[in-house]
Amino acid sequence: MHKERIGKVLKAMKEQNIPQMLVSDPPSIFYLLGKWIHPGERMLVLYLNDQGEHRLFINELFPVYEDLGVVKVWFKDTDKSVELVAKHVDTGTVGIDKNWPARFLLELMAVKSDCTYVNGSPIIDGIRTMKDDTEKDLMRKSSTLNDAAMGKVVELISSEYTEKKVVQELLSIYEELGTEGPSFSPIIAYGANGADPHHGPDNSVLKEGDSIIIDIGTKYNSYCSDMTRTVFYRSVSPKAREVYNIVREANARAISVIKPGVRFCDIDAAARDYIEEKGYGKYFTHRTGHSIGIEVHDFGDVSSVNTDCVAPGMIFSIEPGIYLTGDFGVRIEDLVMVTEDGCEVLNKFTKDLIVVE
Amino acid sequence: MHKERIGKVLKAMKEQNIPQMLVSDPPSIFYLLGKWIHPGERMLVLYLNDQGEHRLFINELFPVYEDLGVVKVWFKDTDKSVELVAKHVDTGTVGIDKNWPARFLLELMAVKSDCTYVNGSPIIDGIRTMKDDTEKDLMRKSSTLNDAAMGKVVELISSEYTEKKVVQELLSIYEELGTEGPSFSPIIAYGANGADPHHGPDNSVLKEGDSIIIDIGTKYNSYCSDMTRTVFYRSVSPKAREVYNIVREANARAISVIKPGVRFCDIDAAARDYIEEKGYGKYFTHRTGHSIGIEVHDFGDVSSVNTDCVAPGMIFSIEPGIYLTGDFGVRIEDLVMVTEDGCEVLNKFTKDLIVVE
Repeated sequence: MHKERIGKVLKAMKEQNIPQMLVSDPPSIFYLLGKWIHPGERMLVLYLNDQGEHRLFINELFPVYEDLGVVKVWFKDTDKSVELVAKHVDTGTVGIDKNWPARFLLELMAVKSDCTYVNGSPIIDGIRTMKDDTEKDLMRKSSTLNDAAMGKVVELISSEYTEKKVVQELLSIYEELGTEGPSFSPIIAYGANGADPHHGPDNSVLKEGDSIIIDIGTKYNSYCSDMTRTVFYRSVSPKAREVYNIVREANARAISVIKPGVRFCDIDAAARDYIEEKGYGKYFTHRTGHSIGIEVHDFGDVSSVNTDCVAPGMIFSIEPGIYLTGDFGVRIEDLVMVTEDGCEVLNKFTKDLIVVE
Repeated sequence: MHKERIGKVLKAMKEQNIPQMLVSDPPSIFYLLGKWIHPGERMLVLYLNDQGEHRLFINELFPVYEDLGVVKVWFKDTDKSVELVAKHVDTGTVGIDKNWPARFLLELMAVKSDCTYVNGSPIIDGIRTMKDDTEKDLMRKSSTLNDAAMGKVVELISSEYTEKKVVQELLSIYEELGTEGPSFSPIIAYGANGADPHHGPDNSVLKEGDSIIIDIGTKYNSYCSDMTRTVFYRSVSPKAREVYNIVREANARAISVIKPGVRFCDIDAAARDYIEEKGYGKYFTHRTGHSIGIEVHDFGDVSSVNTDCVAPGMIFSIEPGIYLTGDFGVRIEDLVMVTEDGCEVLNKFTKDLIVVE
């Protein structure tokens, strides 16, 4: 499986005249070699070239003894790791990982000034976008577990739980469900806190009428889920109900247009135009969604500037929201997988308006 | 306080002929502006220049309403954020944050090809190395809380707790102690697992004679602690006791040589030479320590290649270890703060050999 993936990368490199590439991002290295290595601030580089002289440059601190199908070049903290890489790099074009830190790139550019450096990540990102059957099953399973966690979270909401406490409980729920834990920092946002799309859970407690944004995701065999539901505590104001229904309809409209050949920007527009039509356009402050897989934010997004077309096997979120500063927020998010003639919604948890007591 | 810090950076930029700088790392932005902003994969740039025309380029998704002392340039997901930055960058030398992802740097280099790009982070890193009085107090408090957590962890160790379960309990302990949670993924490693310095906690359970590496740290008001103790379960083999005493003595020897003017490499040598002398040199596979502050790994390390001298206000770890693959590992780590004539050890938890029942 991993040899096949490297083969796809080499083929795309050839088509794009990039004879060599440095891959540094742990998720891409996991995708290509089947092994998670987290180097922290230390250098980790998978060098691929069209001669098949692949090398994994790895610090001795990370003892990876198994055969990964590529030759390992070990180095110590006291070695000049970038110079080791430079020795293997040929004059010409070099694809660079989009996430390679500037300290390494600037050093390599100084040592190998006769190379042309380009962002090589679109090659791997494009391939990672199209999930194979194994990946599809893992993504389904991850979202099924996330649906189960959502059910448990909605059940435990009460006046006694601060946002932080709900997050703590969620971590135990994920553990009990046999997942690998959260795929991102969970967002639990009560009332006005929900008007910040990235609110960090704090010690807020519920008061009647609060909206509760629950944006959670987990990992199962390294594959991420991510979903959002917004529920209400004890009662719903007419305005909150109106906003909820608009967001729910925007979510449904975006999902209804998804099929192979449709552009990401058209999916974004399906949600955005409806929210605008209803007068809340300026309160939908973010893109409609993002790709997901080994990373919770994989490459590619559902936004007004992405004119790429979707294709079978792609998986991304549909998460319109309306954020009224000082008042409340509503977001409803599902993961969807593009099929041959439409899409499969990976989340099954209800989108009916829920009022918890 | 933050204006003073920016002033120090501008002074150092002038001395090093770097008239402008892009700071992108959230910890450095927190250090300079007093605000944590976590942009994920989105661009976040603090542009500083010698004319005082500082700008914070920030995505609208991160609503930072307070006055941070610099003009904010807001952008949306659909804007070309790097081009916005390029418009403010003057022809000439530009200091780049060491952690700026290649995707941004390569794009800026393409748009502004008439600039010279250098790693500008040593300037800020150097200033962050020297803790001021407020920072010293926070670092002491963070380590005091970490000592307390270590005591509780050592107490709860038993045959019923897997490594993972101990980590779970530790998270609750940090919560109860009023900290901001762990400063890094805690390491709990039983027996042979401890021979991997970066072992990830799993479902291993204890057996008699196991060494138990406990490498934990927390955050208090954004300042990190980090310490390691190695204890034993029920009994200690003569070899393990020998190794323990060697590591303990190496830790003590390194600490004993610390004072202003001593080079980091000499501190490393004080620990390393002793371990070598005792025949275990090749099993001490990492540097002796690392700087710490807002980040658990701040810039600068205690290694054989760092010939910089230590100075009052610097805080770093002293953490020699011996790792016997397939058998066990021992590491003993304290944080130390350089004083006018020596150093203050921030961790007070005993280094006597502990056998838990």
